[in-house]
Amino acid sequence: MKVAVIMGSISDMPVMQDAINILKEFGIETEVDIVSAHRTPEKLFDFSNNAHKRGISVIIAGAGGAAHLPGMVASMSPLPVIGVPVKSSNSIDGWDSVLSILQMPGGVPVATVALNGAKNAGILAAQIIGSADIAVLNKIVAYKEELKAAVIKASESLK
Amino acid sequence: MKVAVIMGSISDMPVMQDAINILKEFGIETEVDIVSAHRTPEKLFDFSNNAHKRGISVIIAGAGGAAHLPGMVASMSPLPVIGVPVKSSNSIDGWDSVLSILQMPGGVPVATVALNGAKNAGILAAQIIGSADIAVLNKIVAYKEELKAAVIKASESLK
Amino acid sequence: MKVAVIMGSISDMPVMQDAINILKEFGIETEVDIVSAHRTPEKLFDFSNNAHKRGISVIIAGAGGAAHLPGMVASMSPLPVIGVPVKSSNSIDGWDSVLSILQMPGGVPVATVALNGAKNAGILAAQIIGSADIAVLNKIVAYKEELKAAVIKASESLK
Amino acid sequence: MKVAVIMGSISDMPVMQDAINILKEFGIETEVDIVSAHRTPEKLFDFSNNAHKRGISVIIAGAGGAAHLPGMVASMSPLPVIGVPVKSSNSIDGWDSVLSILQMPGGVPVATVALNGAKNAGILAAQIIGSADIAVLNKIVAYKEELKAAVIKASESLK
Amino acid sequence: MKVAVIMGSISDMPVMQDAINILKEFGIETEVDIVSAHRTPEKLFDFSNNAHKRGISVIIAGAGGAAHLPGMVASMSPLPVIGVPVKSSNSIDGWDSVLSILQMPGGVPVATVALNGAKNAGILAAQIIGSADIAVLNKIVAYKEELKAAVIKASESLK
Amino acid sequence: MKVAVIMGSISDMPVMQDAINILKEFGIETEVDIVSAHRTPEKLFDFSNNAHKRGISVIIAGAGGAAHLPGMVASMSPLPVIGVPVKSSNSIDGWDSVLSILQMPGGVPVATVALNGAKNAGILAAQIIGSADIAVLNKIVAYKEELKAAVIKASESLK
Amino acid sequence: MKVAVIMGSISDMPVMQDAINILKEFGIETEVDIVSAHRTPEKLFDFSNNAHKRGISVIIAGAGGAAHLPGMVASMSPLPVIGVPVKSSNSIDGWDSVLSILQMPGGVPVATVALNGAKNAGILAAQIIGSADIAVLNKIVAYKEELKAAVIKASESLK
Amino acid sequence: MKVAVIMGSISDMPVMQDAINILKEFGIETEVDIVSAHRTPEKLFDFSNNAHKRGISVIIAGAGGAAHLPGMVASMSPLPVIGVPVKSSNSIDGWDSVLSILQMPGGVPVATVALNGAKNAGILAAQIIGSADIAVLNKIVAYKEELKAAVIKASESLK
Repeated sequence: MKVAVIMGSISDMPVMQDAINILKEFGIETEVDIVSAHRTPEKLFDFSNNAHKRGISVIIAGAGGAAHLPGMVASMSPLPVIGVPVKSSNSIDGWDSVLSILQMPGGVPVATVALNGAKNAGILAAQIIGSADIAVLNKIVAYKEELKAAVIKASESLK
Repeated sequence: MKVAVIMGSISDMPVMQDAINILKEFGIETEVDIVSAHRTPEKLFDFSNNAHKRGISVIIAGAGGAAHLPGMVASMSPLPVIGVPVKSSNSIDGWDSVLSILQMPGGVPVATVALNGAKNAGILAAQIIGSADIAVLNKIVAYKEELKAAVIKASESLK
Repeated sequence: MKVAVIMGSISDMPVMQDAINILKEFGIETEVDIVSAHRTPEKLFDFSNNAHKRGISVIIAGAGGAAHLPGMVASMSPLPVIGVPVKSSNSIDGWDSVLSILQMPGGVPVATVALNGAKNAGILAAQIIGSADIAVLNKIVAYKEELKAAVIKASESLK
Repeated sequence: MKVAVIMGSISDMPVMQDAINILKEFGIETEVDIVSAHRTPEKLFDFSNNAHKRGISVIIAGAGGAAHLPGMVASMSPLPVIGVPVKSSNSIDGWDSVLSILQMPGGVPVATVALNGAKNAGILAAQIIGSADIAVLNKIVAYKEELKAAVIKASESLK
Repeated sequence: MKVAVIMGSISDMPVMQDAINILKEFGIETEVDIVSAHRTPEKLFDFSNNAHKRGISVIIAGAGGAAHLPGMVASMSPLPVIGVPVKSSNSIDGWDSVLSILQMPGGVPVATVALNGAKNAGILAAQIIGSADIAVLNKIVAYKEELKAAVIKASESLK
Repeated sequence: MKVAVIMGSISDMPVMQDAINILKEFGIETEVDIVSAHRTPEKLFDFSNNAHKRGISVIIAGAGGAAHLPGMVASMSPLPVIGVPVKSSNSIDGWDSVLSILQMPGGVPVATVALNGAKNAGILAAQIIGSADIAVLNKIVAYKEELKAAVIKASESLK
Repeated sequence: MKVAVIMGSISDMPVMQDAINILKEFGIETEVDIVSAHRTPEKLFDFSNNAHKRGISVIIAGAGGAAHLPGMVASMSPLPVIGVPVKSSNSIDGWDSVLSILQMPGGVPVATVALNGAKNAGILAAQIIGSADIAVLNKIVAYKEELKAAVIKASESLK
Repeated sequence: MKVAVIMGSISDMPVMQDAINILKEFGIETEVDIVSAHRTPEKLFDFSNNAHKRGISVIIAGAGGAAHLPGMVASMSPLPVIGVPVKSSNSIDGWDSVLSILQMPGGVPVATVALNGAKNAGILAAQIIGSADIAVLNKIVAYKEELKAAVIKASESLK
C-alpha cells in the first residue's frame, strides 16, 4: 500500500510537504515526485498510465493557477486521485487552482481538498487505505482522538 | 463493500440519484438515506459514529447552501467522506455549498467533487473500493474505455 | 442572563476577545469555551442541547473556513445563535466562513455578523437581552450616545 | 412582545411574507410596514427612534440591492435588528444586498440571515423573544421536533 | 461654488485627502467633515437636507464596509452625490463598499468612482462644476494636457 | 443645457431607454446616438473631443462586457461622464461591465451607476444640471417628493 | 495555412460553430474535431505533438468547466493555441472555464478569449495568419470596415 | 518581424519587462513604449492605426484596473493583440484588469494571458511569428525542451 505524492513544480513543495509528513505519521509508504502537466507531458502519461501497475493505491497531486495536473492524472489512472489546490504567486486569490481542480466533467472525478490543504490530502489518502485495511482504520480512529484531546486541553487552558 | 449515499434533504435526490445509478452500474451495493445535519443531529451522530461498524466502506454526502452534512460526518467517521455540493434554490450561485464543503480545517478532510457532481462522487467511491479490489479496479479501467469510445464515436460523426 | 462565547479553535481567540470585552463593558456575564464542531462533536452536542438549561440566554459562536460551529449549535439549541465568521489563514479571503455561516437552510437561523465582527456579536447579544430587560436596553442607548460623541469629537478635531 | 416586519419596497413582500407567516405560527404579534431608507428617510427616522418606545421587541428589515434599511434602522434603534437580504431584479446575484447588510461597522450590528431567508428571520425573532420567555422557548423546541419529524418521514418514504 | 467632502470615519481621511488636494489644485472651495450614517444619523439628516441651501454644489462622500453614507445622503439631498468606496480593514477585499455604494435603487443615484478613488471623485466634482462654468471647464482641459505630458515624458525616458 | 445619451450597440437600447425617458420627464433636452468604442473609434474621437463644444453638458454612456466606451469618452472629454454598466448576453453576470467602467485610473473619472441603472444615470445628469440651475434643482426636489408619496401610498395599501 | 478547431465535447459545438463560420468567411481552411483531454488523452497527445507537422498553423480549443484541453494542447504544441471558455451546464457561472484556461503558468501561454467567444477566436486565428500574409491582413482590415458600417447604419436608424 | 510591447503606465514596466526579456531570448526584435488609452488617446490612435504599416507583426499591451488599452488597440489595428492584465495597486484583486481585457465583444478579439503573465505574452508573440517562420518555430520547440529539462532536474534533486 503506497501513496504517490506528486506536484507540478518544486515551488509547491512547502505546501505539499504536509501530505508527506502526515502519511509518515500514519506509517504509510510514500513516493514523491515532480510531474508537470504542462512541461513534462510524457512523464505525466507514463506516471498516470502505470501508477496502479506499480503498487500505488492512491495519488495525491498538488498544483497552482490553471492547475491541470490532478485532472489529467485522473483522466488516465483508474486510482483515486486527490487534488490539492496550491495558492501560488500570481494566483487570483486561489480561485483559479480551486476551480481548475474541483470542476471536473462527469466521468473523471478528482477528490478535491481545501486550498493548500495538503495535510488533509494525506489524511484522506490514509482513510482510503483504511477503508479496506483495519489496522490503518484504527490509526485514523486514534488520530481523531488526538485531535479531540488537543482541543480539550486548549479548552482547559482557558479556565 | 458498501457505499452509503446520504443527503440533507429529499429535495437533493434529483442530483444525488446520479451517484446511486453509477454505483449500480459498477455493481456496488448502496444504502440511501436522508440525514439532515441541521434537523436530525442525533441521526447524524448515530450514522457517523457507526457507519464503519456496519460494513460501510465509503460515505457520499450531498447538501446545499451552508452545507454542513459532509463535514460533520467526516468529523465523526474514520471512513473517507465524499462531499457533493448541491446547487439549491436561494443558493448564491452554488458558491455557498462549494465553500462549506471544500474548505475543511486541518485534520478533517472531505473529498469534494464538482457542483452537482454526484455522478463523479459515485465513480470516486468505486475508485476508492477499487484501490484495494482488483475486480472493481478493472471495472474502472473498462469504464474509462467506454468514455473514450463515446468521444471517438462523436468525433467520427463529425466527418 | 448569561452569554456563552464559544469558538472552534484557540486560534480564533484574538478575534473573539472583542465579544468578551464589550459584554464585560455592558456588565453581562459571559462563559467562554472552545467547542470544535469537527474535533469535539460530542462536546458540541452536550453544549448545544444543554445551554438553555444552564441559564444561557444567547450563544455567540465564531469559526473560520468551512465554519460549521454556529450552524450546528443552532441545529440543536433553541436559543438565538450569533455567528462570527473568522478570517483564518488559508481562508479564501473570508468568503468561506461568511457563506458557511450565513446561508443556513430554512428552519435553522444563525444571526450572522460581519467578517471578524466579534465586537458587534457582543453588542447584538446585549441588544437581545435588552429587548426584554430595560436596564440593559438603557445601556445600549447610552452606548449609542458614546459612539455619536466620539464621531462629533473627531469631527471637531478637523476644524 | 411584538415584532415589526418592515421592507424597503412593496416588491419585497413575496419574500418577506415568510417572516410574517412563521411569526403567526408561533403566535407572536407582528406589525408590517414599508419603510424606504432611500425614499422615505423621515419615516425611517421616526420608525427607528420610536420602535422600542411603542412596545416593539425585535425589528426584521428586508431590502435588496444596496440595502441600507437594516443598517440605518440599527443605527438609531437600540433593539436587535434582523436583516434579510432580498435578491431583487438587477441585483448582482444577491451579493450586493448580502454585503450591504452584513458588513456593518463596529458598534452597529445587524443580525443577517441568508439571501431571501425571511422565514429564518421570523424564527430568529421568536428565538430572541424566547430567550426571556419560556413559553416561546418551548414553542421553538417543539418546532425543532417538527423539523426532525418531517425529515424522518421523508427518510422512511425512501424505503 | 463649493464642494462638501464628508466621510464616515476619521480613519477614511488618508484616502479622502486626495479629493481635498485635487479640488484645491483646481481652486475650488471645499468644506470637510465627518458624518457617520451609523453613529450620527441626526447629523446625516441635517447635513443632507440642508447642503444645497448652504451653497454646496456637489457632495463627495467616502465610506468603507457596508457603506451607507453616500446613498443615505443621496436619499435626502437633491445635489449630485459622488461616492468613494474605501477599502477599510476587515472589508472583504473592498467588494462590500463597492456594492453598497454602486447598486442604488431606481430614483436615488450615487455617482460611484473606483475603490479608494478619492482623487477621481475630486476631479469629477470639478467636471460637474465645469459643466456650467467655463473657467473650471478650461482648467479640466488643461489638467488633461498635463496628464498627457507626463505620459509622453515617461515614454521618452524609456528611449 | 443638453445631455448626450450614447451606447455601444443598438442592443443596449432597451436598457438605455430609461435614461432618455426620465430626462424627458425632467424636460431636459437629449441627443441619442450609437458610438462603439471598438467598432467606430474615429466616431468615438470626434464625439468625445467635440461634445463640450456643441453645447452638451453631461454625457451618459452605456456599454456591456469589456465596456470601454464610458472610460474612453472620459479620457477625451472634459465633461462629466456617467457610465451605465449593461448586463449583456455572455457577460459574466455583469461583473465585467461593472468593473470595466468603475475602476478607472487616477485622473480620468467615470461616474458609475448600478448595473442596468440607466434611469439613475438620467436622474444624475439632471442633478448635475440642477447643481447650477435652480429650476432643475427644484424639479429634483419635487421628484423626491413623488418617490416618497408612492412609498407612503404602498404602505397604506398594506393596512 | 490551416486552423484546427477542436473541442472537449460534442456539446460544445453550438458555441464553437461560430469559430468555424467566421473562418469560412475569411476563406481560411479549417479542420474540426473532438479531442477530450479527460476522455481521450492519447488522442490529445497525438493531436498536440503532430499538428504543426501536418500543416496546421493555429489551434483553437474550446472547453467548459475545469477546462484543461487548451492548456494541455499548449503544453505539447509549439503552435499558438487560442482557448475558448465555454459556459457549460453545471459550470459555476463560467468562472471555472475562464480561470482554467486563462491562468496558465509561465512558459505555456494560451491566448484566451471571452466566455463563449468562439467567433473572436476565429478572428484572432485569422489575424495570426494575417500577421504574415498580406492577403489575409487585408481581409481583416475590410472586416473592420464592415463592423463600422453596421454601427453607423444602426446609428442612422435611430434618427 | 517585430513585436511592439506597450503599456498604459511606466508603473507597469516591472511586470512588462518579462515580455521584453523573453522576446530577446528568442532573438525577436522589440519596440517598447508607453501608450495610455486614457491620457494619450491621440497617441493610441496613431499607434494603433499605423503599427501594421511600420512592420510590426504582433502587439503586446499591458494595463491594470479598468484596462482599456489592449481592447482599444485591437479596435483599430488588424494585427493580433495580446493583452496582459496587470495587478496594479487599488485593483480589486486583479479581477478588474482581467475582465476589462478578456471580455471583448464579438468582432474585436484580444488574446488574453494570465494576470501579470507578461512572460507568456512574449512567448505567445513568438509562437505567432513561429506559425509562419520555421526558424522561430524551432526555437519554441527547443524552449519547451528546456522547460522539460528543468523539471526533470528538479525531480532528480528530490531523490
